[in-house]
Amino acid sequence: MFDHLIPQRVAEATARIHGIAHVTPVLTSRTLNARAGSAVFLKCENLQRVGAFKFRGAYNAVSRLDDGTRAKGVITHSSGNHAQGLALASKLLGVPCTIVMPDNAPAVKKAATAGYGATIVQCAPIDRERVALQLAQANEYTLIHPYDNGNIIAGAGTAAWELFDQVGELDYLFVPVGGGGLISGSALAAVERSPGCRVIGVEPESADDANQSWRNGTVTTLDVVPDTLADGLRTRFIGERNLFVMQRYVSDMTTVSEVAIQVTLRFVWERMKIIIEPSSAVALAPVLLGTYPVRGRVGVLISGGNVSWDVVCRFLSIDRVS
Amino acid sequence: MFDHLIPQRVAEATARIHGIAHVTPVLTSRTLNARAGSAVFLKCENLQRVGAFKFRGAYNAVSRLDDGTRAKGVITHSSGNHAQGLALASKLLGVPCTIVMPDNAPAVKKAATAGYGATIVQCAPIDRERVALQLAQANEYTLIHPYDNGNIIAGAGTAAWELFDQVGELDYLFVPVGGGGLISGSALAAVERSPGCRVIGVEPESADDANQSWRNGTVTTLDVVPDTLADGLRTRFIGERNLFVMQRYVSDMTTVSEVAIQVTLRFVWERMKIIIEPSSAVALAPVLLGTYPVRGRVGVLISGGNVSWDVVCRFLSIDRVS
Repeated sequence: MFDHLIPQRVAEATARIHGIAHVTPVLTSRTLNARAGSAVFLKCENLQRVGAFKFRGAYNAVSRLDDGTRAKGVITHSSGNHAQGLALASKLLGVPCTIVMPDNAPAVKKAATAGYGATIVQCAPIDRERVALQLAQANEYTLIHPYDNGNIIAGAGTAAWELFDQVGELDYLFVPVGGGGLISGSALAAVERSPGCRVIGVEPESADDANQSWRNGTVTTLDVVPDTLADGLRTRFIGERNLFVMQRYVSDMTTVSEVAIQVTLRFVWERMKIIIEPSSAVALAPVLLGTYPVRGRVGVLISGGNVSWDVVCRFLSIDRVS
Repeated sequence: MFDHLIPQRVAEATARIHGIAHVTPVLTSRTLNARAGSAVFLKCENLQRVGAFKFRGAYNAVSRLDDGTRAKGVITHSSGNHAQGLALASKLLGVPCTIVMPDNAPAVKKAATAGYGATIVQCAPIDRERVALQLAQANEYTLIHPYDNGNIIAGAGTAAWELFDQVGELDYLFVPVGGGGLISGSALAAVERSPGCRVIGVEPESADDANQSWRNGTVTTLDVVPDTLADGLRTRFIGERNLFVMQRYVSDMTTVSEVAIQVTLRFVWERMKIIIEPSSAVALAPVLLGTYPVRGRVGVLISGGNVSWDVVCRFLSIDRVS
């Protein structure tokens, strides 16, 4: 069905984004290793352009469009990192870009996206997919789906590909799962670069649709938008392409509690001095807190660093001694 | 007078801490470069052990003590990064360590210092120097002064030494100034490694004792403890050794406002996704905001990342769109 989703696509995407996306650093911590009982490597996509891995897939997807398609422009619906990634990629490639955002999106995110030159269209949150589709049809824009898209998947996989370049083979790779773009790309990279590596997907307990889908073999949709601090993982369902890859190449799926996300966030900010977003803490939590037993060499994909300070300060103020 | 304070001391210290202190990364940002109009290199000592450059000097100082002196133990007075640096260095070298802390020091700092195995002695804030001296005399502890100490200066200078290894020669190097340990060490490193580099010391406006001392050629003491967000730079006077080096090798001194510190902190957290402490923002502010004109290749010493979340959240909550 999606048999073109092969490791070679990730290798090609890596070449395509070379010199455009940052080669993000891999950070380690003695304290983290001691707590985890293993050697942990954090692939810091929070230090990527636009502050998230999303730039990789967006640039890969837009750069693969032909000139005629590029001239008409691209569109997507997102209030988060994909919006900023697509806006910057389009700007760099000279492609007109429209982003449909819910009218309740934070002003800071609208400003950041507009800052990359994209046109922002606001609508009611429930209407955003419909509005994006209508605008795409009416204007012949190409819709770049945030995760259910082969070029997005291949581009997202370049972070893991690069991690294997930087640290060699791994025993485990933990990846946060929202729509499934990052984990399906990462799993494709691992197949080629570290065949013995167990790729583990992690979701918040309240947003376990990918866990269910992976176990059931069919895309399972949550009834409500999950209530989790990890705002990047509030998707109700993963993509068909994503499930296709995950069923073949993901070794296991797990979940973490909201408390685990908070404790992990705080550990990284206070002890490792980098700002990661709650979605990234989701991937590290099972390793830091030992809820998923590991040993050996463990990679963790830190997906981004775009946090809402309101939320952060609300729970940081609760308790001072960690 | 202090003619032993030569670049060679920094080179020796670099060899001594090799494999013990982290070689901290140098981070860059296109956005920062665009705003600064120059190529800016941040030497990230916030990612150093104990979260600050202070570990370098402390380890250098303790490792130079002879066995008999080590067995008796070391002492210092500090509620900040020097306390944690000395505690960890002593632990690694098997030396008993006592830290005199004001009884109003944050619980989180006491806990961190005690966590490295040091004995904490609490006293009234005004008494801490006297108490440390008394305990040193009574117990034959060696007092390791936080900045007016040749080994501390040489150790602090290893961060700049390493920066020149990593990025080559620079046109400017901006360094925050509290007691003067970091800038005097950095200036010694620059003399040897990048002779054309202008080393610039930066203080908060309200804590400009080093600016005054450097201009007057004599140590000037502030009447009150300065009221600045940069808690690491609330020293009332620099050391004699520090002034001696600064007068010879520091090109210029400048100050920044509290608003500039806040704007800079926020820029680094939000755009660069690393946690730096307010004292580090002091060094970057003149470059980011253009209050000290520069061009070419500019290094900035990010001294540490130990922030008080209470303070941070208090002013982050004021305004959301940056």
